[in-house]
Amino acid sequence: MRAAALNSGQIHVRDDVPEPQPEAGQILVQVKACGICGSDLHFAEHGADWLALSKEMQGAPPLTLDGPDVDLGQDVFLGHEFCAEVLEVGPDTVGPKPGTLVTSIPVLLTAGGIRSITYNNDVPAGYGERMLLSADVLTEVPNGLDFRHAALTEPMAVGMHAVNRSGITPNDGALVLGCGPVGLAVIGALKLKGVETIVATDFSPARRALAATMGASEVVDPATEPAFDAWQRAGGGRPLVVFEAIGVPGIIDGVLRDAPHGTRLAVVGVCMEHDRINPFFALNKEMNIQFCFAYDPMEFNETLRCIAEGELDVAPLITGEVDLAGVAGAFEALGDPDNHCKILVTP
Amino acid sequence: MRAAALNSGQIHVRDDVPEPQPEAGQILVQVKACGICGSDLHFAEHGADWLALSKEMQGAPPLTLDGPDVDLGQDVFLGHEFCAEVLEVGPDTVGPKPGTLVTSIPVLLTAGGIRSITYNNDVPAGYGERMLLSADVLTEVPNGLDFRHAALTEPMAVGMHAVNRSGITPNDGALVLGCGPVGLAVIGALKLKGVETIVATDFSPARRALAATMGASEVVDPATEPAFDAWQRAGGGRPLVVFEAIGVPGIIDGVLRDAPHGTRLAVVGVCMEHDRINPFFALNKEMNIQFCFAYDPMEFNETLRCIAEGELDVAPLITGEVDLAGVAGAFEALGDPDNHCKILVTP
Repeated sequence: MRAAALNSGQIHVRDDVPEPQPEAGQILVQVKACGICGSDLHFAEHGADWLALSKEMQGAPPLTLDGPDVDLGQDVFLGHEFCAEVLEVGPDTVGPKPGTLVTSIPVLLTAGGIRSITYNNDVPAGYGERMLLSADVLTEVPNGLDFRHAALTEPMAVGMHAVNRSGITPNDGALVLGCGPVGLAVIGALKLKGVETIVATDFSPARRALAATMGASEVVDPATEPAFDAWQRAGGGRPLVVFEAIGVPGIIDGVLRDAPHGTRLAVVGVCMEHDRINPFFALNKEMNIQFCFAYDPMEFNETLRCIAEGELDVAPLITGEVDLAGVAGAFEALGDPDNHCKILVTP
Repeated sequence: MRAAALNSGQIHVRDDVPEPQPEAGQILVQVKACGICGSDLHFAEHGADWLALSKEMQGAPPLTLDGPDVDLGQDVFLGHEFCAEVLEVGPDTVGPKPGTLVTSIPVLLTAGGIRSITYNNDVPAGYGERMLLSADVLTEVPNGLDFRHAALTEPMAVGMHAVNRSGITPNDGALVLGCGPVGLAVIGALKLKGVETIVATDFSPARRALAATMGASEVVDPATEPAFDAWQRAGGGRPLVVFEAIGVPGIIDGVLRDAPHGTRLAVVGVCMEHDRINPFFALNKEMNIQFCFAYDPMEFNETLRCIAEGELDVAPLITGEVDLAGVAGAFEALGDPDNHCKILVTP
C-alpha cells in the first residue's frame, strides 16, 4: 500500500509498504482523513532531541517508552489524528461492521504489548492508505458526522484535557498564548467549560480571527500590546489561568516574570529544547505550573460527542486538504500561520 | 543602639543606629533572639541579582515591592526570625504590657504603608538590640516557651506553608531534597500532617541525623544512592510529592527528569540564579510544580502553637548562639552544613 513516511528528517511516499494484517482484537481500516499535527513538524525537525530526552528521562509511563527505540534513519510512520472506515475485523474479534466510520486514540493493543500509533518504524499510522486499530479502543463516529470533522477529535481532545487539568472554573479568566491548533482547541474547550473571559494572543491576524471564531472574548496582537497588559485591561481582577500553547524556549519564563501573583500556568505547547527560567519570579508570586499532555479516553470520546452534536465547530480550523503526495508540501506550508491552521491528509 | 548591618556584601556592627521610635500602632521591643536565615546568606551573596530580578518582575504583591529600593551600598538591616520582649507601646496603641515575650511575621505597618522587616535600609530588624513591631500583627509567646525556641517560629512556618500549599495528604509520600533549615521545617510539618513515608536526602551526615530526628522515615546520602532510587525502595507506589529545599540551579530539572509520572513538585528552596529545565520531561509525565513562598499569619500562629505545646521540637535545630559581634563569623560558619544548622543571634 501507499504511505508517507519520515526518513532522516524528510517526508517521502512509498508504494511498497506491507499491507497491515489484523491480529486478534485488531481492525483493519481505510484512512479517510488524518490531520497534520504540530508535534509531527516538531518531530521532523527535533526528532533526535526527542529521542535523546526520552532516553534520558526516567519514570514515564510504559506507553511512551515506545519512542526511544525509533530509528530515525529508517522510515518512520506518522499521523495520529485520523478518521477511518472499517475494512476487516481481525480473527476472533468483535467489532463494527465494514463501512463503519471510526476514530480512536492512537494506541494499538498487540500480543506483544501496547504500541503508540505515532513515530514508529513498524506501526502503520494515519499518513497511509490503511492501518490497524484496536476493537477495544476505537469509537464509532456518530450522527453521520463528516469524516473530516471527526479527524479533529484528537487535537481538540488535547485542548479539553488541558482545560480539565488546569482546574479552571467559570469564575476564572484565561489567557491563551498562541493560537495554533493547540491554542484554538484550548479556546474551544474553555468556551465549553463556561469560561467567559478568554484573552488570546497571536502575531498572526488569521490565527487571531480563528481564535475569535472559536470563542475568545478578546484577541490581541502581542506586537502591539503585551499579553499581560491586555489581560489586565480585559480580564482585570479575575483569578488567572495562562495556557502556554506556543512551545518555544522563553515563553514559560515570560509568564513567570509578568503574570500576576498566584497565576496558574498550564503548559500545553511541546517544547523539545532546553528552556531557561528564573524560579525567583515564580517563588515570589507562588505560581503553579501544570504540564499537560494528551488526554484520557473519556475526554477523547466527550470531544467527539461535542463535535458531532454541534457544540464544538471545528470546520473553520480546516484550511487545506492534500493527498499522500502532498504531505511533504503541507509540512512546508504549515510554517506560515497566516495561510494554514489544520491541513488534512486524505489518502 | 547597636545593630549588625550588611554593606556591600559584608556584615559589620554599628553602635550609632538611631533608636527606633514607635508610631501609633507600633511597639518598641528588645530583641531576645533572632535566627540567621539561609536567605540572608543568599542575599549577602546575590543581593544585586535579587534586586535586578525584583525590578524585572511584574505582578508581585505590593509588600515585596519594598525590596527593589534597597541600596546595597548603604547599611541594610537584616533578621526576620525573631523573638522579642515588649519595651514600650506607641502612642494611642493597645498592646501587650512591657516584659511580654512576642514574635511576629516580619512586616511593619507604618503611616506610609506596609514595610517588610527584611533587607531594608531604614527598618530596624532582628540583628539589632531593638526594633519596632505592629500591635495588630504580633503574637504573644504562650506557655512560658523559651525565647530561643519561639524564634524558630518563622522558619518552621515556611515548612508548614509549603506542606499546606503542596496539597499532600497522609496517603501520599514525600521526598525532601535538602535537609537545611527549610528541608527540616518541611519534614517537621509533614510529620504534623500525618505523612508517614518521608524520604529525606542530604550529603551531610549531621543534616541527615537531624532529618531523622525531625521525623524522616528514611534518610539517604545521594552520593551513595540516587534520590529517586531511594524513593522507589522506600516509598514505592504511593503518590509522590517532592519538596525541593536546596535552591540551586539544576535541582528542578533533575526532578523533572527522574521523578515518576504525575509527581507533584513543591519548590521551597530559593534559587536566585537562572535555571535550566527541559519542559519535555515534565510534559510527558504531566508533572505539577507549585512554588511556595513564606506563610500566612494563621500558619505562623499555628506553628508557634505547635512549638509551644511540644508537638514540634525545634531544640535540636539550634546549633549555635552568637552576639552581634559574632554575626559575620556565623555567616561564615553556616557554610559548613556538618557543623551548623540554625545559629541564633542574641543581641
